[in-house]
Amino acid sequence: MNEIPFIEALRSLPLHPGSRGLADDAAVVNMGGETIILTHDTLVEGVHVREDEDAADTAWKLVAVNLSDLAAKGAKPLGVLVSHMLGGDDTRFIYGLREVLGAYDVSLLGGDTVRAEGRRVWGCTAIGTATHAPVPARSGAKPGDVLYIGGRIGEAMLGLEALRNGSGDDSLAYRRPRPQLELGRRLAPQVTAMMDVSDGLLLDAARMADASGRTIAIDAALVAPLAPPGRLDDAMRWGDDYVLLAAGPEGLDREHGVTRIGTIETRGEHSVLLDNAPPEGSLGYTHG
Amino acid sequence: MNEIPFIEALRSLPLHPGSRGLADDAAVVNMGGETIILTHDTLVEGVHVREDEDAADTAWKLVAVNLSDLAAKGAKPLGVLVSHMLGGDDTRFIYGLREVLGAYDVSLLGGDTVRAEGRRVWGCTAIGTATHAPVPARSGAKPGDVLYIGGRIGEAMLGLEALRNGSGDDSLAYRRPRPQLELGRRLAPQVTAMMDVSDGLLLDAARMADASGRTIAIDAALVAPLAPPGRLDDAMRWGDDYVLLAAGPEGLDREHGVTRIGTIETRGEHSVLLDNAPPEGSLGYTHG
Repeated sequence: MNEIPFIEALRSLPLHPGSRGLADDAAVVNMGGETIILTHDTLVEGVHVREDEDAADTAWKLVAVNLSDLAAKGAKPLGVLVSHMLGGDDTRFIYGLREVLGAYDVSLLGGDTVRAEGRRVWGCTAIGTATHAPVPARSGAKPGDVLYIGGRIGEAMLGLEALRNGSGDDSLAYRRPRPQLELGRRLAPQVTAMMDVSDGLLLDAARMADASGRTIAIDAALVAPLAPPGRLDDAMRWGDDYVLLAAGPEGLDREHGVTRIGTIETRGEHSVLLDNAPPEGSLGYTHG
Repeated sequence: MNEIPFIEALRSLPLHPGSRGLADDAAVVNMGGETIILTHDTLVEGVHVREDEDAADTAWKLVAVNLSDLAAKGAKPLGVLVSHMLGGDDTRFIYGLREVLGAYDVSLLGGDTVRAEGRRVWGCTAIGTATHAPVPARSGAKPGDVLYIGGRIGEAMLGLEALRNGSGDDSLAYRRPRPQLELGRRLAPQVTAMMDVSDGLLLDAARMADASGRTIAIDAALVAPLAPPGRLDDAMRWGDDYVLLAAGPEGLDREHGVTRIGTIETRGEHSVLLDNAPPEGSLGYTHG
């Protein structure tokens, strides 16, 4: 495929003013007195979901990754629409759906079921209401801000490794990501930029840096205690942890239990610096 | 698959009060001063979309079938979220997306792109705002109401046949369904029940009858002028026309240019009667 005409064609689409296009940030739409947040993620068997994955875990992940996009906006979830391809363990899928909806007090608004041969595909659209205006975006980070992260990284990596090598170690962090909805709502009034870490800390920090037109400087020694021992380099490049990444003023760490891991600088040559140098190798994992 | 536990599990989901569940009617959600309508449809290559279909037609259909669900609610579209599986003629897909969004003055709110081998899958979530309260549902038809249809049936059938036999005849009705948004908004304040005909007149009329707890009596002689000559039986069982089906008082035909094709009766043994007898054979087309 020639990507250039595709990207040019994408640019020709009538974008809503609150939209960031296909495959990017959640949309922010003002409606009457409310601001609603809309996001959609698609999961593909063999790409985002292991072929032997418990269908209940697939359902959990499908909803959780969308709720994580709402968390990054400080939104309160209103509900989800779910598209399910029948033909696996459909009852387990519904059980997992019930579990994740119950865990986050989210209701099912609608969706679709389809039946087809071959590898399966699932979709979820999540809708929420903003709890604070302006709604946090990736683009507001400014020099002098502190970079914070909402929790540990590399836990999903360890979970997937446990599944792959059959060690029996805990795989819950990989199978059942926990969107930081409550934290996102608390941070929303105080941050200058916020997003969730879905594709790896370094890669997502670079996206925040690029959207904000800044350079983000990360201090590896501050990240190390959040990563599995000896696995810091991997953990910073691995996705699926769905912790929040935020820029904002001093003191959010003490107030909200997040961890300070770097600073926002004026834009230099690189999007991200790790201990004052561009990170070696790839920044993270990118799906097709 | 054992369908019973699946259906039982589905029933256990925390449904939003305005939701009709997976794979059914659009959701109606009251938010602040607005009522929003949400709907999602998934299309699968080889099931809902021909394998040799122009990707621009796929994009049109993907959005149009969702807008048709909004039309049935009398909603004004606000935007769509689109999930696109890369790997075909992606530029043509975007061109078709631009065409359908432009034709109905709808903006792109967001979405996702994924890349994977094998047959492709597309999803679309459409969101709109209600223009009239109460929002029309399938369930409000009552004895004494007249049954109306918004346009011709069997046109999509002829279009698909033209594509299949390479006759070169017009296939636009199949390739580019036209959601009756404007008609839906005009009818919404006056109807007792409304839906779009996506799976065939007889089947969708049966769904309205069941949702309303009534029997719908259709007069074949009134439908015949709306169907291709000699193809009435097929046309009443064929989907993809996306015309509106509505129940309401006398006179909507003269006021809105819709066609009277039957009446709503108290519930009898059958959901639908055609010339006072249950229709022969299958009622219509059901996707998996």
